[in-house]
Formats: sequence, structure tokens, C-alpha cells
Amino acid sequence: MTILYTTPAPPYYAVIFTSVLAKNVDGYIEMAERMEALARKQAGFLGIDSARSDVGITVSYWQSLEDIDRWKADAAHLVAQDQGRRQWYQSFATRVARVERDNFFALDDSANSTDR
Amino acid sequence: MTILYTTPAPPYYAVIFTSVLAKNVDGYIEMAERMEALARKQAGFLGIDSARSDVGITVSYWQSLEDIDRWKADAAHLVAQDQGRRQWYQSFATRVARVERDNFFALDDSANSTDR
Repeated sequence: MTILYTTPAPPYYAVIFTSVLAKNVDGYIEMAERMEALARKQAGFLGIDSARSDVGITVSYWQSLEDIDRWKADAAHLVAQDQGRRQWYQSFATRVARVERDNFFALDDSANSTDR
Repeated sequence: MTILYTTPAPPYYAVIFTSVLAKNVDGYIEMAERMEALARKQAGFLGIDSARSDVGITVSYWQSLEDIDRWKADAAHLVAQDQGRRQWYQSFATRVARVERDNFFALDDSANSTDR
């Protein structure tokens, strides 16, 4: 069963990465998987959700802006970002946002829905 | 060509909605399309990005928290939210976040990349 990420109580930070792929996506999936595995090991990493239709959306969750900046500047990540600009992406947008409130719902929970 | 939403300069707000569908999704696509069309007409609406793989992610962008609250309380939207909880969603999470910085990239732009 697919499980959504549950994150600690706000405030925390989200990086919203939306993208449209270019025609030549050789090596893209492998690199994306490698970057996700690497992100999970970073200090302050809280979770990641990812989906792709016409547009790809990846939202990663972090404890602080400093954690996000450190991950952005990671050496292996910089190489991937550079190849993304040169080859894989037709376009992308990155948004860094402070999560101020959240709400979770699950059918099987006795609580059913939680505002916080 | 698929185009990503460009939003005005920060700060603005994002609603990050992640979901896992339940088994019975009768009527879901129609309702989702109707809600997206309705969201686009709301005051303060800035844009929306949507994708689905195992997990569905919809990120909508808004001028203010008040705009988000008004859309959350919209009568037709309340009916859809209720049906979502009763029928369509195995689980979901809603996160309201303040976008503090963003960055856009497009292959055809002469500018290529914009930090702000």
C-alpha cells in the first residue's frame, strides 16, 4: 500500500520542484533515483513525495532553510543540477516554502482527520 | 508544449495536496476537473500544477491565506471534500505553505535561469 509521508508538526520547510522533461532523458531516471536516495541521507530531511504526468512534481520536506541550502550545494547534487539544465529539463521551477499548517486524513485511522 | 505556471514574485502561498486514491474512484476525475476549473475562478488564485503516479500531488498557488480559507469554505468545494473523505481517498495530506523564494528555468529563455 502506498503511504504518504507524515511530517512533524509545523513549522518546517518544503521544496516544491515542478518540471517538464526535454526530449533526451537518457540517464534521467537513474540520476533521479540516486538523488532521492542521497537526499534521504541529508541532515534535516523529513520526507519526499513525487509524481509525474505531463508535469513532474517533487516535494521534499526539511527541518530548516539551512538544511535546504546545504543539500542544494551538495557536490553530487550540483553535478545533477547542471546536467538537468543542460540535458533533461525543458523547464523547471523551484519554490522554497515554509509550511505553516497541515492536515492529514487516512481511511483506516480511528482519528480520521487531524488539523494542526 | 506543456507550460509550467509562473507565479508573481514571493511571498505568496502554496497549498500542497498529496493523496492516495481508494479503490472506488467513480466520478473522481470529473469532480477533480470541475474543482480545478472552479479554483481558477477564485479571488487570489495564481496557478496550479498537478501530477499523479502512485501518489497524486496538486500544488495550487494563492495570493494570501484569506484566499485559501475562502476557497476551502466554498460550498461546492465542501461537497467535493466530503465525498473525497467518504469515497475517493485512501489517504491525503494538505499543507499550507508560504513561498519565500523561487527560481525558474526554461531552455528557450535567453535569461535561462532566474533567482528571486
